[in-house]
Amino acid sequence: MTQATPATHPIPERAVAPSADGCWHNLCLAPGLFEMTESDEGDESQASVTEGTLACIVVQQGRVVWVGAQEVLPEQYLNLVTHDGLGQLATPGLIDCHTHLVYGGERANEFAMRLAGATYEEVAKAGGGIVSSVKATREASEDELVALALPRLEQLLAEGVTAIEIKSGYGLALEHERKQLRVARRLGQLCGVTVRTTFLGAHALPPEYAGRSQEYTDLVSQVMLPALAAEGLVDAVDVFCERIAFSLAETEQVFQAAKALGLPVKLHAEQLSNMEGAALAAQYGALSCDHIEHLSENGIAEMKQAGTVAVLLPGAFYTLRDTQVPPIDALRVAKVPMAVSTDHNPGTSPCLSLLLMANMACTLFRLTVPEALAGITTHAARALGLQHEQGLIAAGRPANFVLWPVQHAAELAYWFGSKPQCTIVRQGKVFAPAKA
Amino acid sequence: MTQATPATHPIPERAVAPSADGCWHNLCLAPGLFEMTESDEGDESQASVTEGTLACIVVQQGRVVWVGAQEVLPEQYLNLVTHDGLGQLATPGLIDCHTHLVYGGERANEFAMRLAGATYEEVAKAGGGIVSSVKATREASEDELVALALPRLEQLLAEGVTAIEIKSGYGLALEHERKQLRVARRLGQLCGVTVRTTFLGAHALPPEYAGRSQEYTDLVSQVMLPALAAEGLVDAVDVFCERIAFSLAETEQVFQAAKALGLPVKLHAEQLSNMEGAALAAQYGALSCDHIEHLSENGIAEMKQAGTVAVLLPGAFYTLRDTQVPPIDALRVAKVPMAVSTDHNPGTSPCLSLLLMANMACTLFRLTVPEALAGITTHAARALGLQHEQGLIAAGRPANFVLWPVQHAAELAYWFGSKPQCTIVRQGKVFAPAKA
Ligand SMILES: [Zn+2]
Ligand SMILES: [Zn+2]
Repeated sequence: MTQATPATHPIPERAVAPSADGCWHNLCLAPGLFEMTESDEGDESQASVTEGTLACIVVQQGRVVWVGAQEVLPEQYLNLVTHDGLGQLATPGLIDCHTHLVYGGERANEFAMRLAGATYEEVAKAGGGIVSSVKATREASEDELVALALPRLEQLLAEGVTAIEIKSGYGLALEHERKQLRVARRLGQLCGVTVRTTFLGAHALPPEYAGRSQEYTDLVSQVMLPALAAEGLVDAVDVFCERIAFSLAETEQVFQAAKALGLPVKLHAEQLSNMEGAALAAQYGALSCDHIEHLSENGIAEMKQAGTVAVLLPGAFYTLRDTQVPPIDALRVAKVPMAVSTDHNPGTSPCLSLLLMANMACTLFRLTVPEALAGITTHAARALGLQHEQGLIAAGRPANFVLWPVQHAAELAYWFGSKPQCTIVRQGKVFAPAKA
Repeated sequence: MTQATPATHPIPERAVAPSADGCWHNLCLAPGLFEMTESDEGDESQASVTEGTLACIVVQQGRVVWVGAQEVLPEQYLNLVTHDGLGQLATPGLIDCHTHLVYGGERANEFAMRLAGATYEEVAKAGGGIVSSVKATREASEDELVALALPRLEQLLAEGVTAIEIKSGYGLALEHERKQLRVARRLGQLCGVTVRTTFLGAHALPPEYAGRSQEYTDLVSQVMLPALAAEGLVDAVDVFCERIAFSLAETEQVFQAAKALGLPVKLHAEQLSNMEGAALAAQYGALSCDHIEHLSENGIAEMKQAGTVAVLLPGAFYTLRDTQVPPIDALRVAKVPMAVSTDHNPGTSPCLSLLLMANMACTLFRLTVPEALAGITTHAARALGLQHEQGLIAAGRPANFVLWPVQHAAELAYWFGSKPQCTIVRQGKVFAPAKA
């Protein structure tokens, strides 16, 4: 949300959260989202964890060291500090793998104007559209952008997000793209949350390059990306490949620059039309192809081949009143992993709930509940290259998990518009709900 | 949300909230949702309040006594306790005018089964459908129902709801309908929120009356309604008029019983087909007709004539993937007031956010932002017969208003999946957001 007050944009000091170390008992584990720790003996006594079985998660020095049925908790953990899970459901921390969270301004007025019947031209004349976000982002200082993004990030964190991708793409000039990516890094430090930065210089053509798309693509590939990568600000590289944005050839030029720097790529692909961008991205070993309403069979085959994740963005689909549903059945048959994300952005998805996206993925795209829940955890981790760190409750990983006051995992996708009072373990620290 | 723990269903003690008495200054007032207090002199100096003008709300003994521009705050209020609004946006308390909030169980498993491809028959065989909610509601004690509904109500209250309608209709037998309505009353007392109860005995045919619809309608009209009205449990009477529920003749029978008792009526009308229920309801002076996807021109004309509110329920429309949008343009032209509500229920709208419904009313039904905001305040109050008490910030009314950390009223409908950290004044008490 936009804060009404800060002229000076003070960034509040954050309280230190207590350690999650100890034994978390009386938990129910969400099916499919955990990995039981094998016992040393490999004996037959190891109980399986099914719905209804109480389980434990043991955390030491901020890492999960054991996960399994409470009745076979190894003796060595019996004397640890205990945390009572109260029978709540444990899932991995949620992962929002596609966001444009850092920007100046908002576009509520544009939303209102469109509903009141204004044409795109009238909106543009009133200063609306992506250009307005670029202008406001360029005008804002780094501190201002932190202060603006912070309450938005907090909405997502309050729902159990423990890793988030944040793209640039509203700066569209070296200094402003740098500013956005630096803000993303600072947000991660400030909140103690894993942030993966994505350079999206090729998001839109900045006004000063109107009619000079190739020149701007050269700037992105030859100047901006190398400079920002050298500063350690780029974890991945993205392009908006679309008739109204960048061509397939321009996309490949940016991918080649990323490849030369050893950076993974991802793509805004086939949202409004089939550009065969997904196939190209897969050939570059892309982490993910995102949106993909118009994804072709060829695109699916290439993604399968490359192990590329399909990122579904129902919030934008909903806001744009799109009717072309991504080819879910074909992705399912091809066993392409499907992730689900907010696509938080001020134009087409001013959405601040990953649980709502799970509900929309089920309701609008007909994902099953297990698919939707894997989509905001396990497969979202893979879309960020974090599959060995996050997205699954398992021994050896940093402690990132959430306890939900629900009885069934399906409730996480079933209720909508709810922010459950969950207990969050993030980077080995505990964030408990405020008492009423 | 379903609580995972309570076997004994303890109902927590609630802290006493501080008084809102005093002068609330540095506010922005949401356009169209307040009434300026006229000055005694009726002089020319009275400043008008436009977007950007700072305003005050003065509260004494739990009531609003003055609303207007800060620069013309009457001297007599200068020495009151002050509350700094920090430039935030003030709206009336939100009003959720159509909910089925009190029930046993939930239907997450049914949601998951349907997505996994189960047929309606398979869901029914597994104990799903409305029958499962009736069974769970009948089996639950009054205390259990309070404990189950409380966290759901708290989700809505946290978003600034200050009045809510709660229907019966999962008991479908005198003692169980009584239990639901008693729980609704208790929730109002427990949380200090205005609750309007609606008797919806004619929601569905209970299993034990299968094939005996007329007999059940007689029971509803002649036994249940008079008994519950005599106990003071009924503020209004509702029927589900639909081919799969109650006929037009059965609906009229219930309306006649309500009329005989002097109780206002409302109707679940034309959701799945045009039954001409809205016209009938209007002829009985109905407070509202709700759903109305298939509302006819005749229905609109009758509603206009009677001053009946059109209650739009985009959460059910969304969940059912309905494609028949209510006739918004025709309602607008006829100047029928449009309200927007959650229709919270476990089957077709397990929704816990009225702001999300405002967003969906804009996105799916193309309401303008001012229409959506009036829909969750002013017109929702009218749908409950509360138009002289709630839904507008004005002198003489109980203090029910909300301060939002946003700059523009449009943001309330623009962001979605967000629960803003709002400051709530409800029944003259202050509920401030928890500090991070
Ligand atoms: Zn995007
Ligand atoms: Zn209803």
